[in-house]
Amino acid sequence: MGRRKSRFLRKPVEPFVVEAGLSADAVLERMERISFQGRNLATARRIWEKMLASDATIFLGTAGALSAGGMRLLIAHLIERRYVDCLVSTGANLYHDLHETRGRRHFIGSPTLDDAALAAERIDRVYDTLASEDEFCKNDEWIAAFVLKLERRPYTTREFLYKLGEQLWTDTGNNGILTAAYRAKVPIFCPAIADSSIGMGLSQARHRDQTAGMADVIGDIIESANIVIRKPSTATIVLGGGTPKNFINQASVQAEFYDDRVGGHKYAIQIVTDVPHFGGASGSSLEEAQSWGKLSIESEKVTVHSDVTLALPLLLSALESTSHDLAPRRKRPEFDPSGRILVMNGQPLADGKFQEA
Amino acid sequence: MGRRKSRFLRKPVEPFVVEAGLSADAVLERMERISFQGRNLATARRIWEKMLASDATIFLGTAGALSAGGMRLLIAHLIERRYVDCLVSTGANLYHDLHETRGRRHFIGSPTLDDAALAAERIDRVYDTLASEDEFCKNDEWIAAFVLKLERRPYTTREFLYKLGEQLWTDTGNNGILTAAYRAKVPIFCPAIADSSIGMGLSQARHRDQTAGMADVIGDIIESANIVIRKPSTATIVLGGGTPKNFINQASVQAEFYDDRVGGHKYAIQIVTDVPHFGGASGSSLEEAQSWGKLSIESEKVTVHSDVTLALPLLLSALESTSHDLAPRRKRPEFDPSGRILVMNGQPLADGKFQEA
Amino acid sequence: MGRRKSRFLRKPVEPFVVEAGLSADAVLERMERISFQGRNLATARRIWEKMLASDATIFLGTAGALSAGGMRLLIAHLIERRYVDCLVSTGANLYHDLHETRGRRHFIGSPTLDDAALAAERIDRVYDTLASEDEFCKNDEWIAAFVLKLERRPYTTREFLYKLGEQLWTDTGNNGILTAAYRAKVPIFCPAIADSSIGMGLSQARHRDQTAGMADVIGDIIESANIVIRKPSTATIVLGGGTPKNFINQASVQAEFYDDRVGGHKYAIQIVTDVPHFGGASGSSLEEAQSWGKLSIESEKVTVHSDVTLALPLLLSALESTSHDLAPRRKRPEFDPSGRILVMNGQPLADGKFQEA
Amino acid sequence: MGRRKSRFLRKPVEPFVVEAGLSADAVLERMERISFQGRNLATARRIWEKMLASDATIFLGTAGALSAGGMRLLIAHLIERRYVDCLVSTGANLYHDLHETRGRRHFIGSPTLDDAALAAERIDRVYDTLASEDEFCKNDEWIAAFVLKLERRPYTTREFLYKLGEQLWTDTGNNGILTAAYRAKVPIFCPAIADSSIGMGLSQARHRDQTAGMADVIGDIIESANIVIRKPSTATIVLGGGTPKNFINQASVQAEFYDDRVGGHKYAIQIVTDVPHFGGASGSSLEEAQSWGKLSIESEKVTVHSDVTLALPLLLSALESTSHDLAPRRKRPEFDPSGRILVMNGQPLADGKFQEA
Repeated sequence: MGRRKSRFLRKPVEPFVVEAGLSADAVLERMERISFQGRNLATARRIWEKMLASDATIFLGTAGALSAGGMRLLIAHLIERRYVDCLVSTGANLYHDLHETRGRRHFIGSPTLDDAALAAERIDRVYDTLASEDEFCKNDEWIAAFVLKLERRPYTTREFLYKLGEQLWTDTGNNGILTAAYRAKVPIFCPAIADSSIGMGLSQARHRDQTAGMADVIGDIIESANIVIRKPSTATIVLGGGTPKNFINQASVQAEFYDDRVGGHKYAIQIVTDVPHFGGASGSSLEEAQSWGKLSIESEKVTVHSDVTLALPLLLSALESTSHDLAPRRKRPEFDPSGRILVMNGQPLADGKFQEA
Repeated sequence: MGRRKSRFLRKPVEPFVVEAGLSADAVLERMERISFQGRNLATARRIWEKMLASDATIFLGTAGALSAGGMRLLIAHLIERRYVDCLVSTGANLYHDLHETRGRRHFIGSPTLDDAALAAERIDRVYDTLASEDEFCKNDEWIAAFVLKLERRPYTTREFLYKLGEQLWTDTGNNGILTAAYRAKVPIFCPAIADSSIGMGLSQARHRDQTAGMADVIGDIIESANIVIRKPSTATIVLGGGTPKNFINQASVQAEFYDDRVGGHKYAIQIVTDVPHFGGASGSSLEEAQSWGKLSIESEKVTVHSDVTLALPLLLSALESTSHDLAPRRKRPEFDPSGRILVMNGQPLADGKFQEA
Repeated sequence: MGRRKSRFLRKPVEPFVVEAGLSADAVLERMERISFQGRNLATARRIWEKMLASDATIFLGTAGALSAGGMRLLIAHLIERRYVDCLVSTGANLYHDLHETRGRRHFIGSPTLDDAALAAERIDRVYDTLASEDEFCKNDEWIAAFVLKLERRPYTTREFLYKLGEQLWTDTGNNGILTAAYRAKVPIFCPAIADSSIGMGLSQARHRDQTAGMADVIGDIIESANIVIRKPSTATIVLGGGTPKNFINQASVQAEFYDDRVGGHKYAIQIVTDVPHFGGASGSSLEEAQSWGKLSIESEKVTVHSDVTLALPLLLSALESTSHDLAPRRKRPEFDPSGRILVMNGQPLADGKFQEA
Repeated sequence: MGRRKSRFLRKPVEPFVVEAGLSADAVLERMERISFQGRNLATARRIWEKMLASDATIFLGTAGALSAGGMRLLIAHLIERRYVDCLVSTGANLYHDLHETRGRRHFIGSPTLDDAALAAERIDRVYDTLASEDEFCKNDEWIAAFVLKLERRPYTTREFLYKLGEQLWTDTGNNGILTAAYRAKVPIFCPAIADSSIGMGLSQARHRDQTAGMADVIGDIIESANIVIRKPSTATIVLGGGTPKNFINQASVQAEFYDDRVGGHKYAIQIVTDVPHFGGASGSSLEEAQSWGKLSIESEKVTVHSDVTLALPLLLSALESTSHDLAPRRKRPEFDPSGRILVMNGQPLADGKFQEA
């Protein structure tokens, strides 16, 4: 025809071709040239690889019933192999992790079970997954007993969760999120700890001793921002939205308040089922985050609209194939989360104040 | 034919008939006999009326960008007229309320605005709604200054938010969620305060004085459970899911641990956009909540799958028409949230411990 | 500060203020200044008013279980009062309308009923709504008997549905979608008639007489495009997405192929629960539709993400208050859908061909 | 404790363990013991294997922009290797398949492109995917020219699409959905053909010759039911919902009307993003389908709530690994879809009537 091809029509969609024996890596590679959320998942792998190749401090946020749903060893793996540097989690994910690390289990059920029958047997349902309420009560007591062993002073959730992981590791030697973070010295923040069974365990310790169980969640805000100020090259990976998503962004916004070099996360991946058009934070777009300075205008970013249980196994199996050796060797921050003051790259972060430039 | 009509086919759907001049009350009344989420919204009104006619302590949970989105005076109204007895909120809803109570505004925008242009002008976007980041920074500073005026000791969010509401009312005399709760002596809990700009304000006070800004969120767990133990007849209304939804349920579960008379909430309404099948708490069904004992097996309950901004104006306009006089006169708890220990019906709740039977 | 206010921050959000006795009209008016889907619903009313004030031919598309769910008299009202000029519907909505126009009912049920028990009693469930399968079978037979009375030749669904409405009106004198359209001479297209119980009725007529039951759905494409060509000022209102949404857009695209004056719909409202990011047509954005020329680049448009049963009663109650007298008097096309060739404004559309300029 | 373990708590969730080099088969196998939609996808593979091991006639329904989105060769593969026996599709999926089989392409774009700029260049956007409108117009003309070569009589979509696939194969020798179905003699039904560009091509043929382009979609209803009556052991796999989902169910319901041996599909898989609680057919639950008799009460079934582009590549890569040899050798129906009357297992189905027992 002689007409020049439009600048918009440069890169064709390549229909996915199936073969027996394809690796997860190959499946996800072929998905890079399809459309919609399949392509977005494949893009997420490539952006994660770029994070690993950069010098960015990588935050991981985990919300939703990931641990109950069979994702806890994937998250432990990300921590252990240092695909990520800092975890921000809901309390529930840490609690259900502790449950299994302590040798208890979640069970396969169905969403159509009779909840009155379950209640009669003291079984708690999470959609299609079940657990024993009596075992949960014993976890709470175990946590309370642990809390009562601690020195009586406020603890950031970061310090508290490190010690909890240490105790769990000592007691069980089992792998899990909390124990992997303890061993890899990856800090965990749990800003909404009061809305979880870990919080309930803390409150039961308080019940027995009114000087126990003080969580310093405001200290967490300062520490998380100081991580960004200390090294203003950061990345965010969000699984499920919720408080972790915003807390990770807040760390950057708060850091920028005290240090102009901070300019938002440089890379962002979110895997969420929520949508932007109802205005809530869980579903908010990564573009919207740029207006706030949570993400840099130049950031590389992708949203995958999917259930994490469906997306994560394929994503991490493929990522592991290309990055198994790279991840532990990358340029990354080293933390010591064991004390009252978080230590980053050998130096303590400022004590109770934002690190000023 | 001679066949008896099935027991299932008793109550016909009545097609909605439109007329000019219908009141909100009449619209919602006609929706009781349609189907799907329209019927559910109409049912929510009737269940709320039953709550009001009962002796239940009514918890309200608010998550999502309700205050930024124009819902804050509806929530203030629910508090002021005592349609509810206790608020559990995300920090964001309280913060955006404070922003407007202090005379600042949110603005009408569009989801297709250029976020780089917004960032350049320091304008923050919440889907189709905008605000000035500079004004937000001033709010943070105002909060920090207020915090620095407080005695140096830990505060439950309940006590802190009461005092914040008091200060706001003194400064502005303006209506809003925080000021209405202050005046009506309705306690507010904010379990995830660390994941919000109110938490950022607290952290900025800490920055200036390391002895300031200690939020005792574990104390909140105890107090909220004690409200249930003191009077084990409770109801839950959840707007948007999130941490408030679970915190209200946790109060009941934790209370039951210490007092066998507690048997889950007796009434439940939730207006959520999230769905059950991804396993997260925001979308979890009220049936699932029964397996945990969060709701009584006999509870009256309804889920409305809708954006709150679409559902709430109609729901409350209709409810106001039938319950304007009833709500303030109903059998309800009276609180004094002004001190370190929450007072309920003239008696202090247990200090730092769960109220035991 | 002396700083000029940003051009983005011009129009503040006005928090919704509730009062007893508010009319639906007042509720929706107050929702114009809130955010998210509540604002979008309020905007939809204003765009509909603009459609009515213009000379546009207004297409209405209806998908989802609207008739079973109690919306059929709202749609009949829109037709009768000429808020719309042409209906495009799924077969199911017309079939469930016919069911009730023939004096049968749908019934209020629950989504948690035992489907095996329902099947045993031959009761069909649509989420929380029930109907008798035996009554459905009788409808199918009634339709088949009607079809066998027709002259043996192909019928566009437009002609067929007109005659079906006529028969229903003669038999019952009852109001409904089909009978209102018959009486108001509003054409109805049903492009996916083969995927519905009306199609099943046609097929049962064919079973008895192999020369009966020929639906000419390709003729429908031509006729619907000719409506646009005859007067290239059009508007689209979509409830629920599905085949009607695309068919209305296709009419404009196909019309433009034959007549350059056609430039896409000038106004567009869609109330859908589906979302854009999975790539399907039901959830596709109105912006995307502009790339195809389905909508004019200058069109006024709004998407409301909501269940229709929740949004439509309020929307139409408010619209009726402002437009009750206006709608029937507006500048609108007049159709005669009774014959083989559709007549528009007194002149037959081209016979079996696209109307060329 | 001595307490017996609850019957509900038998099968523990097994946390997913990642390894480098995992095959798609192994990834999906490990997902069988996790929760939520990840588990459902893994279950879908096992149910599909049971379909293949049974004697069931397997219907596949395809809706949503699957072909534009890179899924067309997966569907072609399912047809060619006889993982399925009969396809029911939206017109769009067949049209976008034809576009690529004819050597044209879809292109990788973004959902944030400027639609006015795209419209100016005559580029059509499907969320993040683009195509040339001029090339689409040429497809329409190609279809119209093909239609004009056909004998002037009504064609079921099944017969028409077979001949279209034949012509495409003759012209191009390229693989795709239509050409694979032609070569494998797998019938395709397109009940909503009038709502698609294939329908537009038919209408353009009619425009040139008023005796051309007659699609007999009512005949499709009879043929699809006769397939079920001839062998009342059937299975349904639905990708995306829409008209194909209901049409496949309708075939079973209509068949049962004429033959009591028919008792609903024996196996069912659906991968949909839509949800049940708005009442529409796309999102309706498989349990609800049982109330109608669309599925047998004893059927094995699973719903996967996911975008097809994300779920299908993994599902089919895993299925291929276990079933590559099995699928083509299974007990399956053989069709001859080339003539006016569909031939099944060597015998013509009844001509224009339902096959009676």
